[in-house]
Amino acid sequence: MTKPVLYGGIEGGGTKFVCAVGTGPEDIQAEIRFPTTTPAETMERTIDFFRQYPEISAIGLACFGPLDPNPLSPTYGQILPTPKPGWTGANLVGMLKQAFHLPVGFDTDVNGAALGEYHWGNGRGLDVFMYLTVGTGIGGGVFVNGSLLHGMIHPEAGHLPMPHDLVRDPFPGICPFHQDCFEGLATGVAMEKRWGQPAATLPPDHPAWDLEAHYIAHAMTSYIYILSPQRIILGGGVGQRDDILKLVQEKTRAYLNGYVQSPAVLEHMDAYIVHPGLGNRSGVVGALALAQQALIQSGK
Amino acid sequence: MTKPVLYGGIEGGGTKFVCAVGTGPEDIQAEIRFPTTTPAETMERTIDFFRQYPEISAIGLACFGPLDPNPLSPTYGQILPTPKPGWTGANLVGMLKQAFHLPVGFDTDVNGAALGEYHWGNGRGLDVFMYLTVGTGIGGGVFVNGSLLHGMIHPEAGHLPMPHDLVRDPFPGICPFHQDCFEGLATGVAMEKRWGQPAATLPPDHPAWDLEAHYIAHAMTSYIYILSPQRIILGGGVGQRDDILKLVQEKTRAYLNGYVQSPAVLEHMDAYIVHPGLGNRSGVVGALALAQQALIQSGK
Repeated sequence: MTKPVLYGGIEGGGTKFVCAVGTGPEDIQAEIRFPTTTPAETMERTIDFFRQYPEISAIGLACFGPLDPNPLSPTYGQILPTPKPGWTGANLVGMLKQAFHLPVGFDTDVNGAALGEYHWGNGRGLDVFMYLTVGTGIGGGVFVNGSLLHGMIHPEAGHLPMPHDLVRDPFPGICPFHQDCFEGLATGVAMEKRWGQPAATLPPDHPAWDLEAHYIAHAMTSYIYILSPQRIILGGGVGQRDDILKLVQEKTRAYLNGYVQSPAVLEHMDAYIVHPGLGNRSGVVGALALAQQALIQSGK
Repeated sequence: MTKPVLYGGIEGGGTKFVCAVGTGPEDIQAEIRFPTTTPAETMERTIDFFRQYPEISAIGLACFGPLDPNPLSPTYGQILPTPKPGWTGANLVGMLKQAFHLPVGFDTDVNGAALGEYHWGNGRGLDVFMYLTVGTGIGGGVFVNGSLLHGMIHPEAGHLPMPHDLVRDPFPGICPFHQDCFEGLATGVAMEKRWGQPAATLPPDHPAWDLEAHYIAHAMTSYIYILSPQRIILGGGVGQRDDILKLVQEKTRAYLNGYVQSPAVLEHMDAYIVHPGLGNRSGVVGALALAQQALIQSGK
């Protein structure tokens, strides 16, 4: 029997990093998590962790963005201009390459999660699907025709313009770039500001949830009209609530209003918008999938 | 010298059909146009035209939708439920196959146009781009990672939810499914209803054009955030106006507000949102490209 290949995976979040070593979602052999501080300090802890596992064949980093995932670009492997102090231009892939001389896969956290779901979760066998996370932030990863979608840079599905009924919802939104885009109206942070208490403490019958599902469902209809995905996977702290999923399924079908004549959205909405197959492990498992992809692409 | 392959191309529009025979955009050897009536009558005229050219190797049909472009589906080649009387379920590919026993390419008019632009126009060399038409109707074709985007069925980029400021624009919209979606607010038909005169007769300094560019630019920002295209090609009766193009470029940059840190949108917007390289010939030339693709895929 061939020994399974061991990968290192990093879920690089804005508030915490999770590093794991394993061969896949069912076989995580070690894991560590620590707060995101400066790039130098955070990457040092990351590198120290992986040094204990010299059998690793490749490393994947699924990271908060915006970032440059294009290997042909001069800023490949870096964080692009971000309001997060100290991180603009941080060359994360460069630091990993210098420490390990291994193939490194690098993409957004949500593209990583999409790849993880493609290999081991609810994206298996699909040509076109989206992974959307709604939590502290909002982001979307997209898989199309055999690979992750990058294009100009990578999707920024959270910044979608939103219909905003100021009578129903006078909250002005909090996006520093667009005020009342989808992120500005619907992240966990926006919910806390709007209602004056953390989203997790709002009772299930609070009107906050219906409004939240309203915005998510509007975004879903936009994604469906533009990407025509075969499935949308909804994760994240807010997105993974069962009550939100049910409301989003209902409202998305209502907002499409019969225009898209596919049984997938007309009859099987419960299998169309779904939770991640990997639960809240999509990110770190997705990082392992990025490592696997990098190893294959390196031809080693 | 090998004799170049001759194709038949059909641009199937809701009001007229255009049929052409040629080897590519620079070599159209015959062309005919006639009004769209019933499926039987319209396809009979189409078939009669192509019967005169027995040297044709494949036929492409770029058609109004919604339609089923999935060869594995039981309704492949048909028009899906449409308000257009008599066309629901019309088996257009079946009629062509019965008449000619040739490979037939079949896709939306806008996916056809996108493929034409990919081979011979402003989509050459790109991984991810979109072709958007704004005229009597609105539709988008999308090319990603080497092929046209289908997914669940095909994109319906015209039906995007839109921020709609009722103070600035009290017009309620005319989409029978969604009232004030992008199509409901911004087709040529909506412009005529809103302003009480055909769009083409509105003078260049009429506020109609600024409002129209406002809606198109909002759609552009949605397409950019979801697809991250390397370019967007804007065609159609309204979209091909130079004044609209300029306004859309300016407003799209303004609405993105510096969030997407790519030189493509920050510095080179004039090369980012562009007119079709094939002018108003994208549709019929795209149909030739669909024929070419069908011939290649048939392995003949």
